Amino acid sequence: MGGDSAPRVVVEGIDLALDRHPDIDYLLFGDEEQLIPLLKQFPRVKAVCRVRHADDVVTNTERPSIALRSGRNSSMRLAIDAVAEGDAAGVISAGNTGALMAMAKFVLKTLPGIDRPAIASYLPTQRGRSVMLDLGANVDCDADNLVQFAVMGEVFARNVLGLEQPSVAILNIGAEDLKGNQFVKEAFTTLQESDLPIKFDGFVEGDDIGAGTVDVIVTDGFTGNIALKTVEGTANLFSHLLKQALMSSPISRLGALIARPALNVFRMRMDPRRYNGAMFLGLNGVCVKSHGGTDAFGFANAINVAEEMITNKLNNGIKEDYNRITKSYSNSRSAAG
Amino acid sequence: MGGDSAPRVVVEGIDLALDRHPDIDYLLFGDEEQLIPLLKQFPRVKAVCRVRHADDVVTNTERPSIALRSGRNSSMRLAIDAVAEGDAAGVISAGNTGALMAMAKFVLKTLPGIDRPAIASYLPTQRGRSVMLDLGANVDCDADNLVQFAVMGEVFARNVLGLEQPSVAILNIGAEDLKGNQFVKEAFTTLQESDLPIKFDGFVEGDDIGAGTVDVIVTDGFTGNIALKTVEGTANLFSHLLKQALMSSPISRLGALIARPALNVFRMRMDPRRYNGAMFLGLNGVCVKSHGGTDAFGFANAINVAEEMITNKLNNGIKEDYNRITKSYSNSRSAAG
Repeated sequence: MGGDSAPRVVVEGIDLALDRHPDIDYLLFGDEEQLIPLLKQFPRVKAVCRVRHADDVVTNTERPSIALRSGRNSSMRLAIDAVAEGDAAGVISAGNTGALMAMAKFVLKTLPGIDRPAIASYLPTQRGRSVMLDLGANVDCDADNLVQFAVMGEVFARNVLGLEQPSVAILNIGAEDLKGNQFVKEAFTTLQESDLPIKFDGFVEGDDIGAGTVDVIVTDGFTGNIALKTVEGTANLFSHLLKQALMSSPISRLGALIARPALNVFRMRMDPRRYNGAMFLGLNGVCVKSHGGTDAFGFANAINVAEEMITNKLNNGIKEDYNRITKSYSNSRSAAG
Repeated sequence: MGGDSAPRVVVEGIDLALDRHPDIDYLLFGDEEQLIPLLKQFPRVKAVCRVRHADDVVTNTERPSIALRSGRNSSMRLAIDAVAEGDAAGVISAGNTGALMAMAKFVLKTLPGIDRPAIASYLPTQRGRSVMLDLGANVDCDADNLVQFAVMGEVFARNVLGLEQPSVAILNIGAEDLKGNQFVKEAFTTLQESDLPIKFDGFVEGDDIGAGTVDVIVTDGFTGNIALKTVEGTANLFSHLLKQALMSSPISRLGALIARPALNVFRMRMDPRRYNGAMFLGLNGVCVKSHGGTDAFGFANAINVAEEMITNKLNNGIKEDYNRITKSYSNSRSAAG
């Protein structure tokens, strides 16, 4: 029931996802008075869905703490409960991010060794795609949080992206190790000096995100959220100016018409809907957040992301690798202490 | 002598700037053994330049504190000294940003009421251009710093951009006032509740930078630097993918050829060199930092920026308006205390 055009976008998104994943069954949590008539319009979707009625909806402006306390019968909460109870393999929501994280953390708990889960997402780069985290779950992060994000991101890139030795770096305002705030410097030292089996490439800067300099970019939730949305805003600006230029004269319109197939490929590669579906990493369950303003195509992508996490048994991978990886980390820490 | 291709880029930049500003005279600080033969190749530039020899150069990796202590005979320091002594109306450098800020702050001092100067720059938006600050001078900022940046940015936009009532907002991870870290929340409250004559629009998010939602975007130096470079990196990615798409087939190349004039206008509008020249605001003197990797066209733009600041008597404006503006701020603060 979350997001700007729920529940229609959810049902249409499932419809699109059916082509790629005909084998997924869905539990739809929400107002059955809206859902049942809607499903009648989408018989293919109806065949793979069961509706579970929920009286309440968490609104987009609700404080996470309030939603956690009073939202026990909300569609969001019941969907997360279904994951905890083993009824569902994962949950996808286009609703209130803070409330989703608070509820998921409360209900699903974090994986052993993880203090705070992080929000991660794919980003387009000149080399393909990278993963960045945290994108807003943790406004204030200390060095330990950043190190944990580095480990989770590395494990994710290995398990889901299939990279043998993904490169990891911390986002900073310069590549030299004397730059930055206290926390990034401390995290740098820990990752540099510990014997964690991570290909740690030190610091990267904002322009390295688009360049794709590393596979995993680690940052605090404040900076990460702003960087992610700055990418979106710049892409929008670029599209806007390109369209304006190409529509400016009959000649340029002709050129654009001739180059249209190529321009479509280009648009497709920068389409933010293709990168929709932020992953909550570090939870004992799969939880994916769709952008509240996306359409069916974007929502179908969020379904892909959840499917990928589930099929690759990401959380088992994180749990095992994290244990293995952090053993050397705690050894080196206690040796240092 | 600073930047990747000094001193050639500086001399070529002056050459380009001559068309627009034939009336500017230059003092060139640096190694005369390099400068004098170079100027022979550019007689137009030679005619408006005087060379002042400097033995030392501040390198790009030098710590600001070291540069400040041991760089008294560096080209950077002597150029700043010339501003302090009234020999020059402003200084432009493509060198080490941290060293330039440290030296400029030490030699020129800050304007009354300003604790910390900030680095500001223009950014392209869907509405034209906005100003963002701080872009890296202050890694850690408290609420008072952010409020001071808001005041300086507002005065700048009024004096240099010629806007009657520029809108100002703080960069955050959500538009709701409950989001963000302690400092942005405190600065929000101060700007909201004080009777500062500023059109304060609250919080904006990363995607509002490209949208041009407000005229002045206020942020700490860590976040601002990363956001600025994320804009650059995303623009590079976009250009790279666009070029790749348009070059992908004979048909698309034909389309691109026909639309070339329009594509050139587009490229021009997103050209980072057009936004080169970061302004140090809050100093008792004009100081502009050119990107170290820019070319002559970019350097000429940094000269434009300095000329604009000087011609508009920006620092006088900041001093007067700041006094006027902050009087009501301190009144409201002492009333609150």
